[in-house]
Amino acid sequence: MGELIFIGLGLYDERDMSLHGLDEARACDTLFAEFYTSALRGTTAEKLAAMIGKPLTVLHREDVESGAVLLKHAAVERVGFLVPGDPMMATTHVDLRLRAHEAGIPTRIVHGSSVITAAIGLLGLQEYKFGRTTTVPIPEAGFRPASPVEVIAANREAGLHTLVLLDLKEDGRFLTANEALRYLMEMGGANFPERLAAADLGPPLHSLVVPGTLHFAEREALLRFAGAPPDALPPPS
Amino acid sequence: MGELIFIGLGLYDERDMSLHGLDEARACDTLFAEFYTSALRGTTAEKLAAMIGKPLTVLHREDVESGAVLLKHAAVERVGFLVPGDPMMATTHVDLRLRAHEAGIPTRIVHGSSVITAAIGLLGLQEYKFGRTTTVPIPEAGFRPASPVEVIAANREAGLHTLVLLDLKEDGRFLTANEALRYLMEMGGANFPERLAAADLGPPLHSLVVPGTLHFAEREALLRFAGAPPDALPPPS
Repeated sequence: MGELIFIGLGLYDERDMSLHGLDEARACDTLFAEFYTSALRGTTAEKLAAMIGKPLTVLHREDVESGAVLLKHAAVERVGFLVPGDPMMATTHVDLRLRAHEAGIPTRIVHGSSVITAAIGLLGLQEYKFGRTTTVPIPEAGFRPASPVEVIAANREAGLHTLVLLDLKEDGRFLTANEALRYLMEMGGANFPERLAAADLGPPLHSLVVPGTLHFAEREALLRFAGAPPDALPPPS
Repeated sequence: MGELIFIGLGLYDERDMSLHGLDEARACDTLFAEFYTSALRGTTAEKLAAMIGKPLTVLHREDVESGAVLLKHAAVERVGFLVPGDPMMATTHVDLRLRAHEAGIPTRIVHGSSVITAAIGLLGLQEYKFGRTTTVPIPEAGFRPASPVEVIAANREAGLHTLVLLDLKEDGRFLTANEALRYLMEMGGANFPERLAAADLGPPLHSLVVPGTLHFAEREALLRFAGAPPDALPPPS
């Protein structure tokens, strides 16, 4: 009897996996990975496979979406599927888990650290003051949704912060924070200062956080840890 | 020159820490931990210290809040502060980081897996459909806030799910999901079926998720993976 284990890889390199995740990966018959729902910028599939001590097949988007290879192996073997971040944040992995269940294949999840909480924590903001998360897509002809600016506006209206994730594609394209800021400004939804869209925000991958009402400690943290210019922040509430 | 490193322990036992976290902990001069903002139910401080191979001092709430011991050591040594989950989700740790900064002590964060994304992923729900997180406190005389029912109501009004965290205290008291459901029902804010408040929801610690509008795949996941009775779920939207 096989099994499909979703193993979270965390945020940056091969050592962001948990010890439990490493144990599970080493106990698998076959290992697959995907790096298109997110990417580990500090490592490669080769380094990851070397650390685990087992060969590792990187799947493309269509392989994961069809699920055929994963489910064929998982029907008869213990299969580990290595996924950046916390593994079930991508809808496609929930779909895959449902299909495994339908095929009578047991599934398990080994959690990893996620940008969802990491971004909040690095900035020193408070998680319970965040509204909905949104994603800015890589703009394409005929696809420029207004939903990111709508989500940010609704959150700000309620005094809440917004975590804005930035799209990336399997071919290596990704959106920088500067590009995302310009997108949001062009969509007319957010009154960001122009200098921010031109600022050096460090090497990618990026995410954006649009603050709502700031507590005193949150304001302090943005000044001390996020390099926020004092004149860009509202006075503490 | 000293340093203060916040190291996330993840969710359940000593092997939920990342490899990076273990490396950092082993490279520290002195290790502290706290288990009052959350708790690792699958391990003990002794097991954690044995795995790391270094002694470990568990701090009480007042020690963490005053910060005196941590900052005294971190002024001159490399100090690791081990924290359940992803370490900056607790406001008190952000305060501590700000005080370290004020004292000229560099800080770093090693992320861990968090209930914030783990609960969402285990249920197969979609993160971007969650509104604000809220917490149900252990009710005390004169302290029965209505904020949890207000947050749930506002999220449901917008079709969004709510992650409801449940309070725990340093003396070992914690709220079960059943108690939290009764609290929410008594506060009049949520129309939960009475059978749910009496149901066997497995061993604690618990969190609650109150669904808003469900996508088809979310509904399927709740039926297949969360044991949801079909008649308790609205039809797919």
